[in-house]
Amino acid sequence: MIPHQPGSSRRAFLSFAGTLSAYFWIPKAVKGYTEPEMRAMAIDDRVRSGVSKWDLDTPALCVDLDKMERNISTMQAALKKFGISSRPHAKTHKCAAIARYQLDTGSIGICCAKLTEAEAMVAKGVDRICMTTANPSVSKIRRAMRIRKSHPNFIQAVDEEVNARDLSAAAREAGVVADVVVDAAVGTRSGIPPGEGAVALAQLIDRLPNLRLRGVLSYDGPVQHANGFTARKERALRTIEPNAELFATLNKSGLNMEIFSGGGTGTYNIMHLVPGFTDVQVGSYVFMDMQYMAIGSESGDPVFSDFAPSLTVITTVLNNRFPGRLTTDGGSKALTLNTPHAGVIGEPGMDYNAGSDEFGSIQFNAPPSKAYKIGDKLEAIVPHCDPVVNEYDQMYGIRKDRVEVVWTIDARGKSQ
Amino acid sequence: MIPHQPGSSRRAFLSFAGTLSAYFWIPKAVKGYTEPEMRAMAIDDRVRSGVSKWDLDTPALCVDLDKMERNISTMQAALKKFGISSRPHAKTHKCAAIARYQLDTGSIGICCAKLTEAEAMVAKGVDRICMTTANPSVSKIRRAMRIRKSHPNFIQAVDEEVNARDLSAAAREAGVVADVVVDAAVGTRSGIPPGEGAVALAQLIDRLPNLRLRGVLSYDGPVQHANGFTARKERALRTIEPNAELFATLNKSGLNMEIFSGGGTGTYNIMHLVPGFTDVQVGSYVFMDMQYMAIGSESGDPVFSDFAPSLTVITTVLNNRFPGRLTTDGGSKALTLNTPHAGVIGEPGMDYNAGSDEFGSIQFNAPPSKAYKIGDKLEAIVPHCDPVVNEYDQMYGIRKDRVEVVWTIDARGKSQ
Repeated sequence: MIPHQPGSSRRAFLSFAGTLSAYFWIPKAVKGYTEPEMRAMAIDDRVRSGVSKWDLDTPALCVDLDKMERNISTMQAALKKFGISSRPHAKTHKCAAIARYQLDTGSIGICCAKLTEAEAMVAKGVDRICMTTANPSVSKIRRAMRIRKSHPNFIQAVDEEVNARDLSAAAREAGVVADVVVDAAVGTRSGIPPGEGAVALAQLIDRLPNLRLRGVLSYDGPVQHANGFTARKERALRTIEPNAELFATLNKSGLNMEIFSGGGTGTYNIMHLVPGFTDVQVGSYVFMDMQYMAIGSESGDPVFSDFAPSLTVITTVLNNRFPGRLTTDGGSKALTLNTPHAGVIGEPGMDYNAGSDEFGSIQFNAPPSKAYKIGDKLEAIVPHCDPVVNEYDQMYGIRKDRVEVVWTIDARGKSQ
Repeated sequence: MIPHQPGSSRRAFLSFAGTLSAYFWIPKAVKGYTEPEMRAMAIDDRVRSGVSKWDLDTPALCVDLDKMERNISTMQAALKKFGISSRPHAKTHKCAAIARYQLDTGSIGICCAKLTEAEAMVAKGVDRICMTTANPSVSKIRRAMRIRKSHPNFIQAVDEEVNARDLSAAAREAGVVADVVVDAAVGTRSGIPPGEGAVALAQLIDRLPNLRLRGVLSYDGPVQHANGFTARKERALRTIEPNAELFATLNKSGLNMEIFSGGGTGTYNIMHLVPGFTDVQVGSYVFMDMQYMAIGSESGDPVFSDFAPSLTVITTVLNNRFPGRLTTDGGSKALTLNTPHAGVIGEPGMDYNAGSDEFGSIQFNAPPSKAYKIGDKLEAIVPHCDPVVNEYDQMYGIRKDRVEVVWTIDARGKSQ
């Protein structure tokens, strides 16, 4: 069920990934198909003309469809065994096409971090959305209730009494009873601390005429990247404890607690140990990235290899003149400043620094596999998938080296 | 001519900026106008209904038009005195509207870093473009020659013999003689080293039937942010020396050397000291940012105050529950991971960390000016203007607190 990745270090992994893709290596840009050209070739987003990924204009954001689909089925199978569900986060892929695939393959809903993201998903027919961020302004609250009116499965997080009252008023205005979850804080970033205030908020929601309490959200961001499975598990179970107590208290008091949702890719195989937990808000598992690869597996493998890195950026070598280095056309606007750096597939000796806005600077820590020429292409696993996806208007779905589909990144730039 | 900014430190500057904007402070979101709503209010991009910037849905990218226009006139006046011109870089603003304003107010041309950026500018009627990056693929070379065919003022950088031959072939195919500059390296990122190879390349370009040599580009990225004017000046003049020698050699040999272009906002008042230098490729001066504010002025002011920070992001407070901190709705997708951190105007004691994808985390190093409520808004000077602009589809042009114009960021995401 869990796909096996040989090698016990990042370096070994990148070498292995290189072996896999070596068959498809095309050393020089032949075409350089642009996004408009690829779109023109597609019927219902599907490309049937057999364009190689190496012929795309670069930087090109690519997702290996076999790997992505396997990641999704791996997650579904694991969660089924654990007896919980997935409510994947659309902030990662921002693609209605991928959200629909997740819903079609067993996810019980989709999470959105920003209201404009939810609006973009709804506009493309994605249903069963949970807004995990409380909307802070009257304008946003009203717009959320506009979604709720046409999509009865829409759920809204709330973390404050004033916000709950505003939401009830907006729901009444829209003529609906809005489904609501309490966002209970883990840490000090968002949500209401899981104490008496949170109990009072849940009781208020239960009393307000146009709100229907559904349960509790408890998302712990930082623990997802805690290094080493044992340490991660210990920390995740410790930090969620007050929230689990809150959930139990509310449940015992007779309030409706259908939902106890949180967790992410780093804790997908931990959160089922929390009593009452219903679903994980996993996001990155569809794509993976260098950050997640570094956190380690339950098996003890220092590489987190439960899911395969499906998301890559293809770049072109612009300069090979300076000893021990290459310059590419993918800088921070193509790969972001996140660390660890992008991992060039098949070239474990390359350190890819995307710190410059327009250019990637590669330094050789060990000799590369060949002498790179200007125009040669490189494929790199991204540092951190969410913000990289947000830099592009579309991603290319690749199957066995060929472009199969061109997906619009519907919520790209939707940070409002 | 140089606008005076009181205060001799970043902290003093931010306090001062706060005093300036205090008059317009609106503590609570009243409306939250979305981008589509603002667009619907605009006729030819102009908004006449007097919407306050504090009523925009957030995160909102804003440019203070008075400051931006003053920055542009300050630059033009300074360069006039120095006897050189400006060829501003569109990679900073990616807005055809701003490029046109720069051309209308005296700039001799516009630079583009990526071909898709140039195509976006051309599509909006911007002329006189210089592509500062050599196009590495046959596809990109052909597309560049398509632009050249309809825009005789288009100039293309070349840094390699094969590239020059490909370009000449594509120019012949397009039925044009293409204007070309040699991109001579400063440092080890892009361009051909300014030695015999560069001379041979210039001679080859001069001989190739469909190319016309116009001069030399020499851009030094890293020196722009060198700290302290004296050190920056010494370094800029030292690193450009081999390029100045190349320019003199080519000039003496009788080759056409109309253009000797390079430099940026950090060296706008240094490059005229290089013999033969014709124009600076300044970009950030229109907006400024925390990075540039830190490099210091010629006057000795540790704040680089020659230009005023016109570009800001307005965010909303989402959480005020945890002591000594606030959470906002602007994370790395709204402000990038660049450092120094965003500077909250009027709140020098706030450290704004945009390290989380969706949320900004503010820590109080000193007490804030007031007790912030959920829904309150904050305005921050951006860490590094270029990549922040690239996160948004439009920016709001603000005059005296009111939205005057909604500008499409035409080349947003155009990293190809």
